[in-house]
Amino acid sequence: MDQIIECVPNFSEGRDQEKIAQLVKEVVSTEGVKLLDYSSDKDHNRTVITFCGDAKGVKEAAFKLIKKASEIIDMRYHKGEHPRIGATDVVPFIPVKNATMEECIQIAREVGEKVGRELSIPVYLYEEAATTPERKNLENIRRGEYEGFFEKIKQPEWKPDFGPQEMNPKSGATVIGARNFLIAYNVNLATDNIDIANKIAKAIRFSNGGYRYVKAMGVELKERGIVQVSMNLTDFNKTPIYRVFETIKAEASRYGVNVIGSEIIGLVPAKALFDVADYYLRIENFSENMVLENRIYE
Amino acid sequence: MDQIIECVPNFSEGRDQEKIAQLVKEVVSTEGVKLLDYSSDKDHNRTVITFCGDAKGVKEAAFKLIKKASEIIDMRYHKGEHPRIGATDVVPFIPVKNATMEECIQIAREVGEKVGRELSIPVYLYEEAATTPERKNLENIRRGEYEGFFEKIKQPEWKPDFGPQEMNPKSGATVIGARNFLIAYNVNLATDNIDIANKIAKAIRFSNGGYRYVKAMGVELKERGIVQVSMNLTDFNKTPIYRVFETIKAEASRYGVNVIGSEIIGLVPAKALFDVADYYLRIENFSENMVLENRIYE
Repeated sequence: MDQIIECVPNFSEGRDQEKIAQLVKEVVSTEGVKLLDYSSDKDHNRTVITFCGDAKGVKEAAFKLIKKASEIIDMRYHKGEHPRIGATDVVPFIPVKNATMEECIQIAREVGEKVGRELSIPVYLYEEAATTPERKNLENIRRGEYEGFFEKIKQPEWKPDFGPQEMNPKSGATVIGARNFLIAYNVNLATDNIDIANKIAKAIRFSNGGYRYVKAMGVELKERGIVQVSMNLTDFNKTPIYRVFETIKAEASRYGVNVIGSEIIGLVPAKALFDVADYYLRIENFSENMVLENRIYE
Repeated sequence: MDQIIECVPNFSEGRDQEKIAQLVKEVVSTEGVKLLDYSSDKDHNRTVITFCGDAKGVKEAAFKLIKKASEIIDMRYHKGEHPRIGATDVVPFIPVKNATMEECIQIAREVGEKVGRELSIPVYLYEEAATTPERKNLENIRRGEYEGFFEKIKQPEWKPDFGPQEMNPKSGATVIGARNFLIAYNVNLATDNIDIANKIAKAIRFSNGGYRYVKAMGVELKERGIVQVSMNLTDFNKTPIYRVFETIKAEASRYGVNVIGSEIIGLVPAKALFDVADYYLRIENFSENMVLENRIYE
Protein backbone atom coordinates (compact mmCIF):
# COMPACT_ATOMS: atom_id res chain seq x y z
CA MET A 1 0.00 0.00 0.00
CA ASP A 2 1.81 3.11 -1.24
CA GLN A 3 -0.48 5.57 0.47
CA ILE A 4 -2.08 4.99 3.85
CA ILE A 5 -5.02 7.04 5.05
CA GLU A 6 -6.80 5.75 8.11
CA CYS A 7 -10.54 6.15 8.62
CA VAL A 8 -12.30 5.46 11.94
CA PRO A 9 -16.06 5.94 11.51
CA ASN A 10 -18.41 5.61 14.53
CA PHE A 11 -21.93 4.22 14.07
CA SER A 12 -24.96 4.35 16.37
CA GLU A 13 -25.51 0.60 16.49
CA GLY A 14 -23.63 -1.67 18.88
CA ARG A 15 -26.08 -4.45 19.63
CA ASP A 16 -27.50 -5.97 16.43
CA GLN A 17 -24.75 -8.29 15.15
CA GLU A 18 -26.43 -8.67 11.76
CA LYS A 19 -26.43 -4.90 11.17
CA ILE A 20 -22.83 -4.57 12.42
CA ALA A 21 -21.82 -7.33 9.99
CA GLN A 22 -23.52 -5.47 7.14
CA LEU A 23 -21.45 -2.38 7.93
CA VAL A 24 -18.18 -4.30 8.15
CA LYS A 25 -18.99 -5.94 4.82
CA GLU A 26 -19.01 -2.54 3.12
CA VAL A 27 -15.33 -2.14 4.04
CA VAL A 28 -14.25 -5.66 3.18
CA SER A 29 -15.96 -5.42 -0.23
CA THR A 30 -14.18 -2.20 -1.21
CA GLU A 31 -11.03 -2.39 -3.29
CA GLY A 32 -7.96 -0.49 -2.06
CA VAL A 33 -8.84 -0.58 1.63
CA LYS A 34 -8.04 -2.96 4.47
CA LEU A 35 -10.16 -3.57 7.54
CA LEU A 36 -7.95 -3.20 10.63
CA ASP A 37 -10.40 -3.52 13.48
CA TYR A 38 -14.02 -3.15 14.57
CA SER A 39 -15.45 -3.11 18.05
CA SER A 40 -18.95 -2.62 19.43
CA ASP A 41 -20.10 -1.52 22.85
CA LYS A 42 -23.55 -2.60 23.95
CA ASP A 43 -23.93 0.09 26.63
CA HIS A 44 -22.86 2.80 24.24
CA ASN A 45 -24.86 1.07 21.50
CA ARG A 46 -22.09 2.10 19.15
CA THR A 47 -19.62 0.49 16.75
CA VAL A 48 -16.20 1.82 15.76
CA ILE A 49 -14.69 0.50 12.53
CA THR A 50 -11.02 1.09 11.71
CA PHE A 51 -9.82 0.70 8.16
CA CYS A 52 -7.21 2.22 5.90
CA GLY A 53 -6.32 2.56 2.29
CA ASP A 54 -5.48 5.04 -0.42
CA ALA A 55 -7.49 8.21 -1.03
CA LYS A 56 -9.77 6.61 -3.59
CA GLY A 57 -10.41 3.55 -1.44
CA VAL A 58 -11.18 5.31 1.85
CA LYS A 59 -13.43 7.81 0.08
CA GLU A 60 -15.46 5.02 -1.50
CA ALA A 61 -15.63 2.86 1.63
CA ALA A 62 -16.61 5.80 3.85
CA PHE A 63 -19.47 6.79 1.56
CA LYS A 64 -20.71 3.20 1.23
CA LEU A 65 -20.68 2.88 5.04
CA ILE A 66 -22.62 6.11 5.58
CA LYS A 67 -25.15 5.07 2.95
CA LYS A 68 -25.57 1.60 4.46
CA ALA A 69 -25.91 3.07 7.98
CA SER A 70 -28.62 5.43 6.69
CA GLU A 71 -30.54 2.41 5.44
CA ILE A 72 -30.23 0.06 8.42
CA ILE A 73 -30.01 2.37 11.45
CA ASP A 74 -33.01 4.41 12.56
CA MET A 75 -32.08 7.13 15.05
CA ARG A 76 -35.69 7.55 16.17
CA TYR A 77 -35.27 4.32 18.12
CA HIS A 78 -31.64 4.71 19.22
CA LYS A 79 -30.68 4.68 22.89
CA GLY A 80 -27.14 4.58 24.22
CA GLU A 81 -24.83 6.20 26.74
CA HIS A 82 -22.40 7.75 24.31
CA PRO A 83 -23.18 11.23 22.89
CA ARG A 84 -24.25 11.02 19.21
CA ILE A 85 -26.15 13.01 16.59
CA GLY A 86 -26.48 10.52 13.75
CA ALA A 87 -26.59 6.96 12.44
CA THR A 88 -23.08 7.61 11.18
CA ASP A 89 -21.97 9.82 14.01
CA VAL A 90 -18.42 10.87 13.16
CA VAL A 91 -15.95 10.01 10.37
CA PRO A 92 -12.33 11.16 10.73
CA PHE A 93 -9.71 10.74 7.98
CA ILE A 94 -6.15 10.46 9.25
CA PRO A 95 -2.95 10.78 7.17
CA VAL A 96 -0.55 7.95 8.02
CA LYS A 97 1.85 7.41 5.11
CA ASN A 98 2.44 9.29 1.86
CA ALA A 99 -0.61 11.41 2.62
CA THR A 100 -0.94 15.00 3.78
CA MET A 101 -3.47 16.61 6.09
CA GLU A 102 -4.56 18.74 3.11
CA GLU A 103 -5.44 15.57 1.21
CA CYS A 104 -7.48 14.28 4.15
CA ILE A 105 -9.31 17.61 4.46
CA GLN A 106 -10.10 17.38 0.76
CA ILE A 107 -11.43 13.84 1.18
CA ALA A 108 -13.60 14.93 4.13
CA ARG A 109 -15.06 17.70 1.95
CA GLU A 110 -15.75 15.43 -0.99
CA VAL A 111 -17.39 12.72 1.10
CA GLY A 112 -19.35 15.36 3.06
CA GLU A 113 -20.61 16.99 -0.11
CA LYS A 114 -21.77 13.67 -1.55
CA VAL A 115 -23.46 12.61 1.70
CA GLY A 116 -25.34 15.92 1.86
CA ARG A 117 -26.39 15.80 -1.78
CA GLU A 118 -27.19 12.12 -2.34
CA LEU A 119 -28.37 11.06 1.13
CA SER A 120 -29.95 14.35 2.33
CA ILE A 121 -28.05 14.12 5.60
CA PRO A 122 -26.74 17.39 7.12
CA VAL A 123 -22.92 17.25 7.41
CA TYR A 124 -20.56 19.22 9.65
CA LEU A 125 -16.84 19.38 8.95
CA TYR A 126 -14.68 19.16 12.10
CA GLU A 127 -11.10 19.30 13.39
CA GLU A 128 -8.64 20.20 10.63
CA ALA A 129 -11.47 20.31 8.08
CA ALA A 130 -13.59 22.68 10.18
CA THR A 131 -14.90 25.81 8.43
CA THR A 132 -15.30 27.88 11.62
CA PRO A 133 -13.37 27.79 14.94
CA GLU A 134 -16.55 26.62 16.75
CA ARG A 135 -16.66 23.51 14.56
CA LYS A 136 -13.10 22.38 15.26
CA ASN A 137 -14.16 20.58 18.42
CA LEU A 138 -16.38 17.53 18.00
CA GLU A 139 -18.08 17.93 21.37
CA ASN A 140 -19.01 21.50 20.50
CA ILE A 141 -20.79 20.35 17.36
CA ARG A 142 -22.41 17.37 19.02
CA ARG A 143 -23.78 19.26 22.02
CA GLY A 144 -27.58 18.79 22.24
CA GLU A 145 -27.23 15.41 20.53
CA TYR A 146 -29.68 13.89 18.06
CA GLU A 147 -32.73 14.87 20.11
CA GLY A 148 -31.69 18.52 20.50
CA PHE A 149 -30.45 18.95 16.94
CA PHE A 150 -33.88 19.41 15.38
CA GLU A 151 -33.83 22.89 16.99
CA LYS A 152 -30.07 23.55 17.01
CA ILE A 153 -29.76 23.07 13.24
CA LYS A 154 -32.14 25.98 12.60
CA GLN A 155 -29.71 28.48 14.13
CA PRO A 156 -27.76 30.34 11.43
CA GLU A 157 -24.41 29.54 13.10
CA TRP A 158 -25.25 25.83 12.95
CA LYS A 159 -26.16 25.71 9.27
CA PRO A 160 -24.50 22.48 8.05
CA ASP A 161 -21.47 22.61 5.75
CA PHE A 162 -23.28 20.29 3.33
CA GLY A 163 -26.79 18.93 2.94
CA PRO A 164 -30.15 20.35 4.02
CA GLN A 165 -30.52 22.73 6.98
CA GLU A 166 -32.89 20.33 8.64
CA MET A 167 -32.42 17.08 10.47
CA ASN A 168 -32.87 13.78 8.69
CA PRO A 169 -35.20 12.09 11.20
CA LYS A 170 -33.99 8.59 10.41
CA SER A 171 -30.25 9.30 10.01
CA GLY A 172 -29.72 12.44 12.08
CA ALA A 173 -26.62 14.46 11.12
CA THR A 174 -23.02 13.39 10.51
CA VAL A 175 -19.67 14.92 11.46
CA ILE A 176 -16.84 14.36 8.98
CA GLY A 177 -13.29 15.66 9.22
CA ALA A 178 -9.55 15.22 9.21
CA ARG A 179 -7.22 14.91 12.17
CA ASN A 180 -3.82 13.61 13.18
CA PHE A 181 -3.25 10.11 14.40
CA LEU A 182 -4.14 9.88 18.07
CA ILE A 183 -2.02 7.71 20.36
CA ALA A 184 -3.66 6.54 23.60
CA TYR A 185 -0.73 6.31 26.00
CA ASN A 186 -0.63 5.74 29.77
CA VAL A 187 2.22 5.96 32.27
CA ASN A 188 1.96 3.92 35.48
CA LEU A 189 3.28 5.28 38.77
CA ALA A 190 4.58 3.37 41.80
CA THR A 191 2.04 4.94 44.14
CA ASP A 192 -1.65 4.66 44.98
CA ASN A 193 -1.91 8.43 45.50
CA ILE A 194 -4.30 9.74 42.83
CA ASP A 195 -3.36 13.34 43.72
CA ILE A 196 0.12 12.77 42.34
CA ALA A 197 -1.24 11.36 39.06
CA ASN A 198 -3.60 14.33 38.79
CA LYS A 199 -0.84 16.83 39.49
CA ILE A 200 1.41 15.29 36.85
CA ALA A 201 -1.49 15.19 34.38
CA LYS A 202 -2.02 18.93 34.97
CA ALA A 203 1.69 19.62 34.51
CA ILE A 204 1.88 18.01 31.09
CA ARG A 205 -1.51 18.71 29.49
CA PHE A 206 -2.16 21.60 27.15
CA SER A 207 -5.22 22.89 28.99
CA ASN A 208 -3.08 23.68 32.06
CA GLY A 209 0.07 24.98 30.42
CA GLY A 210 1.68 21.69 29.37
CA TYR A 211 2.53 20.29 25.97
CA ARG A 212 0.48 21.47 23.02
CA TYR A 213 -0.70 18.02 21.89
CA VAL A 214 -1.32 16.25 25.20
CA LYS A 215 -4.65 15.55 26.88
CA ALA A 216 -4.15 13.91 30.28
CA MET A 217 -5.88 12.88 33.47
CA GLY A 218 -5.08 10.85 36.56
CA VAL A 219 -6.68 7.41 36.80
CA GLU A 220 -6.74 4.88 39.65
CA LEU A 221 -5.90 1.25 38.79
CA LYS A 222 -7.58 -0.19 41.86
CA GLU A 223 -6.79 -3.85 41.14
CA ARG A 224 -3.08 -3.12 40.91
CA GLY A 225 -3.16 -0.60 43.74
CA ILE A 226 -1.43 2.06 41.63
CA VAL A 227 -2.33 5.19 39.70
CA GLN A 228 -1.61 6.20 36.13
CA VAL A 229 -1.40 9.27 33.97
CA SER A 230 -3.80 8.46 31.14
CA MET A 231 -3.23 10.43 27.93
CA ASN A 232 -4.19 11.12 24.38
CA LEU A 233 -1.24 12.30 22.30
CA THR A 234 -2.89 14.15 19.44
CA ASP A 235 0.20 14.91 17.33
CA PHE A 236 3.18 12.68 18.06
CA ASN A 237 5.30 14.45 15.46
CA LYS A 238 5.16 17.70 17.40
CA THR A 239 4.83 16.36 20.95
CA PRO A 240 6.75 13.05 20.77
CA ILE A 241 6.17 10.15 23.17
CA TYR A 242 9.68 10.21 24.66
CA ARG A 243 9.41 13.87 25.66
CA VAL A 244 6.12 13.25 27.46
CA PHE A 245 7.52 10.12 29.12
CA GLU A 246 10.70 11.88 30.30
CA THR A 247 8.71 14.84 31.64
CA ILE A 248 6.43 12.51 33.60
CA LYS A 249 9.51 10.71 35.00
CA ALA A 250 10.97 14.04 36.12
CA GLU A 251 7.69 15.28 37.61
CA ALA A 252 7.16 11.97 39.43
CA SER A 253 10.63 12.06 40.96
CA ARG A 254 9.71 15.44 42.45
CA TYR A 255 7.24 13.44 44.58
CA GLY A 256 9.73 10.66 45.22
CA VAL A 257 7.67 8.37 42.95
CA ASN A 258 9.05 5.98 40.35
CA VAL A 259 7.60 5.26 36.93
CA ILE A 260 6.74 1.56 36.79
CA GLY A 261 6.01 1.36 33.11
CA SER A 262 3.80 2.59 30.33
CA GLU A 263 1.05 1.24 28.08
CA ILE A 264 0.00 1.83 24.52
CA ILE A 265 -3.74 1.38 23.97
CA GLY A 266 -4.79 0.44 20.47
CA LEU A 267 -2.54 1.11 17.53
CA VAL A 268 0.63 3.17 17.19
CA PRO A 269 2.31 4.20 13.93
CA ALA A 270 5.80 2.72 13.49
CA LYS A 271 7.29 6.22 13.13
CA ALA A 272 6.22 7.17 16.68
CA LEU A 273 8.35 4.27 17.99
CA PHE A 274 11.26 4.91 15.61
CA ASP A 275 11.38 8.46 17.02
CA VAL A 276 11.74 6.99 20.51
CA ALA A 277 14.63 4.73 19.47
CA ASP A 278 16.26 7.59 17.57
CA TYR A 279 16.10 9.83 20.66
CA TYR A 280 17.46 7.42 23.25
CA LEU A 281 20.19 5.97 21.03
CA ARG A 282 21.11 9.51 19.87
CA ILE A 283 21.23 8.23 16.31
CA GLU A 284 23.08 10.81 14.23
CA ASN A 285 22.00 9.73 10.78
CA PHE A 286 18.56 8.25 11.30
CA SER A 287 16.15 8.16 8.40
CA GLU A 288 13.03 6.03 8.00
CA ASN A 289 14.62 4.85 4.80
CA MET A 290 17.08 2.79 6.89
CA VAL A 291 14.28 0.58 8.10
CA LEU A 292 14.26 -2.64 6.10
CA GLU A 293 10.46 -2.89 6.04
CA ASN A 294 10.13 0.66 4.71
CA ARG A 295 12.26 -0.35 1.73
CA ILE A 296 10.11 -3.37 1.10
CA TYR A 297 6.73 -1.67 1.39
CA GLU A 298 7.74 1.70 -0.09
CA MET B 1 4.69 -9.53 1.42
CA ASP B 2 3.57 -12.05 4.02
CA GLN B 3 6.93 -13.67 4.42
CA ILE B 4 10.24 -11.85 4.23
CA ILE B 5 13.52 -13.66 3.73
CA GLU B 6 16.49 -11.51 2.87
CA CYS B 7 19.27 -12.69 0.58
CA VAL B 8 22.61 -10.86 0.19
CA PRO B 9 24.74 -12.62 -2.44
CA ASN B 10 28.30 -11.43 -3.16
CA PHE B 11 29.74 -11.69 -6.68
CA SER B 12 33.31 -11.46 -7.91
CA GLU B 13 32.67 -8.66 -10.39
CA GLY B 14 32.65 -5.00 -9.38
CA ARG B 15 33.92 -3.19 -12.46
CA ASP B 16 32.00 -4.23 -15.58
CA GLN B 17 28.70 -2.29 -15.39
CA GLU B 18 27.14 -4.38 -18.15
CA LYS B 19 27.76 -7.61 -16.24
CA ILE B 20 26.57 -6.08 -12.95
CA ALA B 21 23.37 -4.99 -14.69
CA GLN B 22 22.84 -8.53 -15.99
CA LEU B 23 23.04 -9.85 -12.42
CA VAL B 24 20.64 -7.23 -11.06
CA LYS B 25 18.24 -8.07 -13.87
CA GLU B 26 17.94 -11.63 -12.61
CA VAL B 27 16.47 -10.30 -9.36
CA VAL B 28 14.17 -7.74 -10.91
CA SER B 29 12.77 -10.32 -13.34
CA THR B 30 11.88 -12.82 -10.59
CA GLU B 31 8.36 -12.86 -9.21
CA GLY B 32 7.93 -12.71 -5.44
CA VAL B 33 11.16 -10.85 -4.69
CA LYS B 34 12.08 -7.19 -4.37
CA LEU B 35 15.47 -5.64 -5.06
CA LEU B 36 16.49 -3.54 -2.05
CA ASP B 37 20.01 -2.46 -2.91
CA TYR B 38 23.14 -3.27 -4.89
CA SER B 39 26.60 -1.82 -4.60
CA SER B 40 29.90 -2.51 -6.31
CA ASP B 41 33.45 -1.85 -5.19
CA LYS B 42 36.07 -1.44 -7.90
CA ASP B 43 39.05 -2.16 -5.62
CA HIS B 44 37.42 -5.26 -4.24
CA ASN B 45 36.11 -6.03 -7.74
CA ARG B 46 32.98 -7.29 -6.03
CA THR B 47 29.22 -6.60 -6.07
CA VAL B 48 26.79 -7.13 -3.22
CA ILE B 49 23.09 -7.43 -4.11
CA THR B 50 20.40 -7.21 -1.43
CA PHE B 51 16.92 -8.51 -2.15
CA CYS B 52 14.12 -10.14 -0.27
CA GLY B 53 11.00 -12.15 -0.84
CA ASP B 54 9.19 -15.29 0.16
CA ALA B 55 10.88 -18.70 0.26
CA LYS B 56 9.92 -19.59 -3.31
CA GLY B 57 11.05 -16.21 -4.67
CA VAL B 58 14.44 -16.00 -2.97
CA LYS B 59 15.23 -19.61 -3.88
CA GLU B 60 14.50 -18.95 -7.54
CA ALA B 61 16.30 -15.60 -7.68
CA ALA B 62 19.37 -16.93 -5.86
CA PHE B 63 19.73 -19.85 -8.27
CA LYS B 64 19.23 -17.63 -11.34
CA LEU B 65 21.92 -15.28 -10.03
CA ILE B 66 24.42 -18.06 -9.38
CA LYS B 67 23.75 -19.50 -12.85
CA LYS B 68 24.14 -16.10 -14.53
CA ALA B 69 27.35 -15.39 -12.59
CA SER B 70 28.72 -18.77 -13.70
CA GLU B 71 28.13 -17.71 -17.33
CA ILE B 72 29.47 -14.15 -17.29
CA ILE B 73 32.23 -14.19 -14.63
CA ASP B 74 35.49 -16.07 -15.22
CA MET B 75 37.50 -16.51 -12.03
CA ARG B 76 40.64 -17.33 -14.00
CA TYR B 77 40.92 -13.62 -14.74
CA HIS B 78 39.62 -12.19 -11.46
CA LYS B 79 41.74 -9.84 -9.36
CA GLY B 80 40.50 -7.94 -6.30
CA GLU B 81 41.44 -7.09 -2.75
CA HIS B 82 38.58 -8.91 -1.06
CA PRO B 83 39.00 -12.61 -0.21
CA ARG B 84 36.89 -14.82 -2.53
CA ILE B 85 36.67 -18.39 -3.80
CA GLY B 86 34.09 -18.14 -6.56
CA ALA B 87 32.16 -16.14 -9.15
CA THR B 88 29.27 -16.26 -6.72
CA ASP B 89 31.32 -16.07 -3.57
CA VAL B 90 28.82 -16.26 -0.74
CA VAL B 91 25.00 -16.38 -0.49
CA PRO B 92 23.37 -15.95 2.94
CA PHE B 93 19.62 -16.35 3.53
CA ILE B 94 18.28 -14.33 6.45
CA PRO B 95 14.88 -14.74 8.17
CA VAL B 96 13.22 -11.33 8.62
CA LYS B 97 9.47 -11.81 8.98
CA ASN B 98 7.23 -14.88 9.21
CA ALA B 99 10.27 -17.03 8.47
CA THR B 100 12.36 -19.26 10.71
CA MET B 101 16.07 -20.00 10.68
CA GLU B 102 15.15 -23.64 9.94
CA GLU B 103 13.39 -22.52 6.78
CA CYS B 104 16.44 -20.52 5.68
CA ILE B 105 18.73 -23.48 6.37
CA GLN B 106 16.43 -25.62 4.23
CA ILE B 107 16.54 -23.03 1.42
CA ALA B 108 20.35 -22.92 1.59
CA ARG B 109 20.44 -26.71 1.27
CA GLU B 110 18.03 -26.81 -1.66
CA VAL B 111 19.81 -24.06 -3.57
CA GLY B 112 23.19 -25.60 -2.76
CA GLU B 113 22.10 -29.02 -3.97
CA LYS B 114 20.80 -27.60 -7.26
CA VAL B 115 23.94 -25.51 -7.83
CA GLY B 116 26.14 -28.56 -7.26
CA ARG B 117 24.07 -30.81 -9.50
CA GLU B 118 23.11 -28.51 -12.39
CA LEU B 119 26.09 -26.14 -12.50
CA SER B 120 28.89 -28.49 -11.33
CA ILE B 121 30.06 -25.92 -8.80
CA PRO B 122 31.30 -27.20 -5.41
CA VAL B 123 29.14 -25.75 -2.61
CA TYR B 124 29.92 -25.31 1.09
CA LEU B 125 27.16 -24.67 3.62
CA TYR B 126 28.11 -22.11 6.30
CA GLU B 127 26.90 -20.37 9.48
CA GLU B 128 23.61 -21.85 10.72
CA ALA B 129 23.49 -24.20 7.73
CA ALA B 130 27.03 -25.55 8.33
CA THR B 131 27.43 -29.35 8.48
CA THR B 132 30.61 -29.27 10.60
CA PRO B 133 31.86 -26.78 13.22
CA GLU B 134 34.79 -25.85 10.97
CA ARG B 135 32.37 -24.69 8.27
CA LYS B 136 30.39 -22.34 10.46
CA ASN B 137 32.85 -19.53 9.90
CA LEU B 138 33.03 -18.09 6.40
CA GLU B 139 36.69 -17.06 6.70
CA ASN B 140 37.61 -20.57 7.71
CA ILE B 141 36.05 -21.99 4.55
CA ARG B 142 37.42 -19.26 2.31
CA ARG B 143 41.01 -19.50 3.56
CA GLY B 144 43.35 -20.19 0.63
CA GLU B 145 40.91 -18.40 -1.71
CA TYR B 146 40.18 -19.35 -5.29
CA GLU B 147 43.84 -19.92 -6.16
CA GLY B 148 44.52 -22.19 -3.19
CA PHE B 149 41.27 -24.12 -3.42
CA PHE B 150 42.37 -26.40 -6.27
CA GLU B 151 44.50 -28.16 -3.63
CA LYS B 152 42.39 -27.52 -0.53
CA ILE B 153 39.30 -29.14 -2.03
CA LYS B 154 41.09 -32.46 -2.37
CA GLN B 155 41.45 -32.79 1.42
CA PRO B 156 38.79 -35.13 2.86
CA GLU B 157 37.75 -32.55 5.49
CA TRP B 158 37.08 -30.04 2.69
CA LYS B 159 34.90 -32.27 0.55
CA PRO B 160 32.07 -29.93 -0.54
CA ASP B 161 28.54 -30.37 0.86
CA PHE B 162 27.21 -30.48 -2.71
CA GLY B 163 28.69 -30.72 -6.19
CA PRO B 164 31.95 -32.25 -7.41
CA GLN B 165 35.04 -32.56 -5.20
CA GLU B 166 37.04 -30.51 -7.66
CA MET B 167 37.18 -26.83 -8.43
CA ASN B 168 35.20 -25.41 -11.31
CA PRO B 169 38.00 -23.44 -12.99
CA LYS B 170 35.67 -20.79 -14.39
CA SER B 171 33.27 -20.40 -11.41
CA GLY B 172 35.38 -21.56 -8.45
CA ALA B 173 33.35 -22.69 -5.44
CA THR B 174 30.39 -21.09 -3.67
CA VAL B 175 29.49 -20.72 0.00
CA ILE B 176 25.76 -20.78 0.80
CA GLY B 177 24.13 -20.55 4.19
CA ALA B 178 21.70 -19.07 6.66
CA ARG B 179 22.36 -16.46 9.32
CA ASN B 180 20.67 -13.85 11.43
CA PHE B 181 20.22 -10.27 10.33
CA LEU B 182 23.41 -8.32 10.94
CA ILE B 183 23.17 -4.72 12.14
CA ALA B 184 26.20 -2.50 11.55
CA TYR B 185 26.09 -0.10 14.46
CA ASN B 186 28.63 2.48 15.68
CA VAL B 187 28.77 4.56 18.85
CA ASN B 188 30.70 7.86 18.76
CA LEU B 189 32.71 9.04 21.76
CA ALA B 190 33.59 12.60 22.80
CA THR B 191 37.32 11.93 22.75
CA ASP B 192 40.12 11.51 20.20
CA ASN B 193 41.76 8.81 22.31
CA ILE B 194 41.66 5.60 20.29
CA ASP B 195 42.80 3.59 23.33
CA ILE B 196 39.48 4.30 25.03
CA ALA B 197 37.49 3.14 21.97
CA ASN B 198 39.62 -0.01 21.82
CA LYS B 199 39.18 -0.73 25.52
CA ILE B 200 35.41 -0.35 25.27
CA ALA B 201 35.35 -2.52 22.14
CA LYS B 202 37.20 -5.24 24.08
CA ALA B 203 34.79 -4.93 27.00
CA ILE B 204 31.69 -5.53 24.90
CA ARG B 205 32.80 -7.98 22.22
CA PHE B 206 32.32 -11.71 22.45
CA SER B 207 35.93 -12.58 21.66
CA ASN B 208 37.13 -10.85 24.84
CA GLY B 209 34.34 -11.84 27.24
CA GLY B 210 31.63 -9.39 26.18
CA TYR B 211 28.20 -9.95 24.69
CA ARG B 212 27.65 -13.14 22.72
CA TYR B 213 26.50 -11.44 19.48
CA VAL B 214 28.80 -8.40 19.33
CA LYS B 215 31.86 -7.93 17.15
CA ALA B 216 33.57 -4.61 17.90
CA MET B 217 36.68 -2.54 17.27
CA GLY B 218 37.86 0.99 17.91
CA VAL B 219 38.01 3.31 14.88
CA GLU B 220 39.39 6.85 14.53
CA LEU B 221 37.15 9.41 12.78
CA LYS B 222 40.01 11.75 11.91
CA GLU B 223 37.93 14.42 10.19
CA ARG B 224 35.69 14.84 13.22
CA GLY B 225 38.56 14.44 15.69
CA ILE B 226 36.74 11.72 17.61
CA VAL B 227 36.81 7.95 17.96
CA GLN B 228 34.05 5.40 17.68
CA VAL B 229 33.23 1.87 18.72
CA SER B 230 32.38 0.19 15.43
CA MET B 231 30.27 -2.94 15.70
CA ASN B 232 28.45 -5.76 14.03
CA LEU B 233 25.47 -6.95 16.05
CA THR B 234 24.93 -10.49 14.78
CA ASP B 235 21.71 -11.31 16.66
CA PHE B 236 19.75 -8.29 17.85
CA ASN B 237 17.07 -10.50 19.39
CA LYS B 238 19.55 -11.97 21.86
CA THR B 239 21.94 -9.04 22.23
CA PRO B 240 19.68 -6.01 21.70
CA ILE B 241 20.94 -2.60 20.58
CA TYR B 242 19.88 -0.77 23.74
CA ARG B 243 21.87 -3.12 25.99
CA VAL B 244 25.01 -2.60 23.94
CA PHE B 245 24.45 1.16 23.85
CA GLU B 246 23.90 1.41 27.61
CA THR B 247 26.96 -0.72 28.33
CA ILE B 248 29.11 1.49 26.12
CA LYS B 249 27.74 4.59 27.91
CA ALA B 250 28.64 3.06 31.28
CA GLU B 251 32.10 1.97 30.15
CA ALA B 252 32.78 5.38 28.59
CA SER B 253 31.82 7.18 31.80
CA ARG B 254 34.49 5.14 33.58
CA TYR B 255 36.98 7.14 31.46
CA GLY B 256 35.07 10.39 31.96
CA VAL B 257 34.00 10.29 28.31
CA ASN B 258 30.53 11.10 26.97
CA VAL B 259 28.72 9.29 24.19
CA ILE B 260 28.04 11.83 21.42
CA GLY B 261 25.70 9.70 19.38
CA SER B 262 25.40 6.55 17.36
CA GLU B 263 25.04 5.51 13.72
CA ILE B 264 23.24 2.75 11.91
CA ILE B 265 25.01 1.68 8.73
CA GLY B 266 22.80 0.13 6.07
CA LEU B 267 19.46 -1.36 6.96
CA VAL B 268 17.88 -2.20 10.28
CA PRO B 269 14.75 -4.32 10.84
CA ALA B 270 11.86 -2.39 12.39
CA LYS B 271 11.72 -4.84 15.30
CA ALA B 272 15.24 -3.92 16.43
CA LEU B 273 14.04 -0.31 16.86
CA PHE B 274 10.70 -1.28 18.42
CA ASP B 275 12.71 -3.20 21.04
CA VAL B 276 14.62 0.00 21.83
CA ALA B 277 11.41 2.03 22.27
CA ASP B 278 9.88 -0.77 24.34
CA TYR B 279 12.90 -0.82 26.67
CA TYR B 280 13.24 2.89 27.31
CA LEU B 281 9.51 3.57 27.63
CA ARG B 282 9.16 0.46 29.83
CA ILE B 283 6.09 -0.53 27.82
CA GLU B 284 4.21 -3.15 29.82
CA ASN B 285 2.01 -4.57 27.09
CA PHE B 286 4.05 -4.15 23.94
CA SER B 287 3.39 -6.40 20.99
CA GLU B 288 4.37 -5.91 17.37
CA ASN B 289 0.71 -6.32 16.62
CA MET B 290 0.12 -2.83 18.08
CA VAL B 291 2.06 -1.26 15.27
CA LEU B 292 -0.34 0.08 12.67
CA GLU B 293 1.86 -0.87 9.73
CA ASN B 294 2.15 -4.45 10.96
CA ARG B 295 -1.61 -4.72 10.80
CA ILE B 296 -1.68 -3.37 7.30
CA TYR B 297 1.12 -5.52 5.88
CA GLU B 298 0.45 -8.66 7.90
